[in-house]
Amino acid sequence: MRSRLRRTFQSALPLPHGTESHLAGALRDTLQHPGSMVRAELAYRVGCSFSMSEERAENLAIAIEYFHTASLLFDDLPSMDDASLRRGMPCAHQIHGEGAAILAALALINRAYSLVWKAVAGLPPEVQASALCYLERHLGIAGLLNGQSQDLHYSRLAHPQREPQSIAMGKTVSLIRLALVMPAIVAQARREEINLLERLAVLWGLSYQTLDDLKDVLYTEQGHGKTTARDAYLDRPNIALTMGIPESFDRIERLMNLASRTMTRLARRRGPLAFLREVRVQFNKEITALSEASLTRAS
Amino acid sequence: MRSRLRRTFQSALPLPHGTESHLAGALRDTLQHPGSMVRAELAYRVGCSFSMSEERAENLAIAIEYFHTASLLFDDLPSMDDASLRRGMPCAHQIHGEGAAILAALALINRAYSLVWKAVAGLPPEVQASALCYLERHLGIAGLLNGQSQDLHYSRLAHPQREPQSIAMGKTVSLIRLALVMPAIVAQARREEINLLERLAVLWGLSYQTLDDLKDVLYTEQGHGKTTARDAYLDRPNIALTMGIPESFDRIERLMNLASRTMTRLARRRGPLAFLREVRVQFNKEITALSEASLTRAS
Repeated sequence: MRSRLRRTFQSALPLPHGTESHLAGALRDTLQHPGSMVRAELAYRVGCSFSMSEERAENLAIAIEYFHTASLLFDDLPSMDDASLRRGMPCAHQIHGEGAAILAALALINRAYSLVWKAVAGLPPEVQASALCYLERHLGIAGLLNGQSQDLHYSRLAHPQREPQSIAMGKTVSLIRLALVMPAIVAQARREEINLLERLAVLWGLSYQTLDDLKDVLYTEQGHGKTTARDAYLDRPNIALTMGIPESFDRIERLMNLASRTMTRLARRRGPLAFLREVRVQFNKEITALSEASLTRAS
Repeated sequence: MRSRLRRTFQSALPLPHGTESHLAGALRDTLQHPGSMVRAELAYRVGCSFSMSEERAENLAIAIEYFHTASLLFDDLPSMDDASLRRGMPCAHQIHGEGAAILAALALINRAYSLVWKAVAGLPPEVQASALCYLERHLGIAGLLNGQSQDLHYSRLAHPQREPQSIAMGKTVSLIRLALVMPAIVAQARREEINLLERLAVLWGLSYQTLDDLKDVLYTEQGHGKTTARDAYLDRPNIALTMGIPESFDRIERLMNLASRTMTRLARRRGPLAFLREVRVQFNKEITALSEASLTRAS
């Protein structure tokens, strides 16, 4: 399943003959390095757990991954995080130019909306409306875009908004929400199942952002495959810098314990959702590696 | 109708409480200066000519105008045309920063897809599929995005692609197509009507780009409200620079004559489409003004 999703990620945006070479280069490089594809995998498996057709689940999964990938292309731009490394490679804007990186991101977004449309085509209009409204809310100015903007302008935020965890709700939780909740909406899950998935998305999203912030502080570029130590340098919100390193590890543990209880309740309602527990295993591996990095750093 | 469309343009993307201030500022400035809204007006009136409901026509019209406006925000960025003036105002990135301009453009795009969805909601699935496929093709890497990329990388294009008129097909005709043809698709017009509208979109799009290129060459910033004389400076495709100024005026006239014949055929098939002739009047005014600028320059 994982390798099929990777192949679809690489092939779902074919470049027409005559695509300008910088744009084609930026897209080709981006499509050839799919990253972990954790969001696509989650979306696909949640969809299948609710008996969604494989085709719909795959379209939705790739769409969410394209939205995520586009957000990384924008994030890395000189006017945003000014990163130079992503997925172990020089960033698209460094090789192909900023203009090509922007246009490649827009091509991914354009294709992603089309794939979402295919994922809901033929469903009852009220299901379509509810899914597309959810997408708009969490991608738009009430969700991801506002989170990105708060992240970018963190140093100039007034005090009550200067809270890394609330910023993470926009910039990180939004896409996890799309991966976990949107397939359930499309598959017409029950309200209580959707509410539990919402809760899980928040708990995981905050854990994930805390982990990512710890990586920014603890890892070197070589080990991480992307530009690190940017948050302190750029004055960006970083939960680990605000809260402290040991406190951040504690926080992740508390969040993951709450997430485990939510997963138990979900699996009781819908058996196939038991797969969600695998994410905990993956997460634990990353936390162990990070703890070691933290100890190495302290010694 | 025009003033209602302007009001809807300004109100169809309400900013939620808590929107980050740079992003909010860039969006507010952009929404307060709608420009000519020629694409929205065309889309709305074509839709109504095919008996589309006012609500659908308006949603589609504003969506197309938001896509267009987003493309201008991207165009003006330092990594693209590096413009400083737009609609008589400093560009969004100059006042609010590049990051905010990019995020504002993405907010417009996110809202635009949602409005398109509302415009096709509840229609037969094959009509929805055909409209959304048309949108994807002309906004994406086979349309607008490729045109933008060819425009941006013009100096490095190989010879057969280095043709300003073929580049205009992507960067300019695409959005005119969406304004003229997409409402007809949504309203389930006949194949021959759609074909004639396609033809009109190409003729108008090429005329419009020739006019715009003449403006870049002949106008000063004060008279034009946006940064001019960029094409020669940045080595961008410019039909007037390639073809010559008098030849460009001739070319516009030939294209507009062909367009007139197409409009006659359209109006014969569907009476309300006779409104399209008004565009010719507006166009003639602009051409007269430009001819005067050309004469002033020559004297």
